[in-house]
Amino acid sequence: MNYPTTIKNLIECYKKLPGIGEKTAERLALATLNIDKEIISLFSQSLVDSQIKIRRCEICNNLTETNVCDICRDKNRIQDVVCVVEDPKNVIALEKIGTFKGKYQVLSGLISPLDGVGPENIKLDLLIHRVKEENIKEIILALKPSIEGETTILYISKILSGSNIKITKLAHGIPMGADMEYVDLMTLETALDNRTEVS
Amino acid sequence: MNYPTTIKNLIECYKKLPGIGEKTAERLALATLNIDKEIISLFSQSLVDSQIKIRRCEICNNLTETNVCDICRDKNRIQDVVCVVEDPKNVIALEKIGTFKGKYQVLSGLISPLDGVGPENIKLDLLIHRVKEENIKEIILALKPSIEGETTILYISKILSGSNIKITKLAHGIPMGADMEYVDLMTLETALDNRTEVS
Repeated sequence: MNYPTTIKNLIECYKKLPGIGEKTAERLALATLNIDKEIISLFSQSLVDSQIKIRRCEICNNLTETNVCDICRDKNRIQDVVCVVEDPKNVIALEKIGTFKGKYQVLSGLISPLDGVGPENIKLDLLIHRVKEENIKEIILALKPSIEGETTILYISKILSGSNIKITKLAHGIPMGADMEYVDLMTLETALDNRTEVS
Repeated sequence: MNYPTTIKNLIECYKKLPGIGEKTAERLALATLNIDKEIISLFSQSLVDSQIKIRRCEICNNLTETNVCDICRDKNRIQDVVCVVEDPKNVIALEKIGTFKGKYQVLSGLISPLDGVGPENIKLDLLIHRVKEENIKEIILALKPSIEGETTILYISKILSGSNIKITKLAHGIPMGADMEYVDLMTLETALDNRTEVS
């Protein structure tokens, strides 16, 4: 005796999600039985839609349901400042601040030679194409401060070095509200190096 | 700017699952985009099936896709020993051992006056009906050793006290492989009280 086929299938499907093992998948599958009918049909439909409707924006590689995403189509945004991010999640985070009014370029990860991910694997061609076609004044590299992030920043700044584009990266330093004694030494060193004048 | 509708819907659906908050739901929704097409259609179909096909066995209240579950229909199992459990998950666990050859009765939880759950809310009527209709010799109460579990055991043994049915409960004691010094005092006391002769 085992679970009925439907529940077994649900468990197998939940297990395909990241961080979900056998026990959690079982718990989620059983919990699914108690969810409202409307939510279940929305869930089922959204899963199908995720395969059919969701695509990448032709210009910026962000997730979209149209050929060109909302941000790329928005004529009110600053057209000549492009913020480069690793992942669609970062676009959402930056949009939540609400102060950045430029456009985005979403990579497919970061350069990581150890994992066999080279510059040709992270959709840099779209950025290069854009630099040629559009009149871009500034490129903000909003990539995480890791070896992979720094490698990618270095690579992009190198291939764009011939152009007149201003290339910037996010400031590193002590996070707001952090306790000084818990900040790691590398962050502290960076914060000291990049100290700003009190106006 | 926010996620496309499909992704927003997926996030909302994942959030309905137990233990899944905003951040995890977002992560799961984005991960869903990278899952194989076949798995996604199986997932979508299983969700719909979970509403349509899955029902409770008319006899034992276990999850099934037929009116009467596989175990209740199995003529090779011992017909007059019924193991009472709290939840369909417990049936799976007991079946994994493979030594119990009797039948099951699945309750819908345990009696818990503090949470407003009385004997009438946990599908005890099915058990009472079964006791009247079938010639049951033994009822094993495989319920967890908590206040709710003990209350339910007490209640069931009381309503069945007039019958000739042998009522048993699972042995409590030190779990196999446990370190003696980490066993809680209540378990140790129970283990001492219920000591068995070394044969």
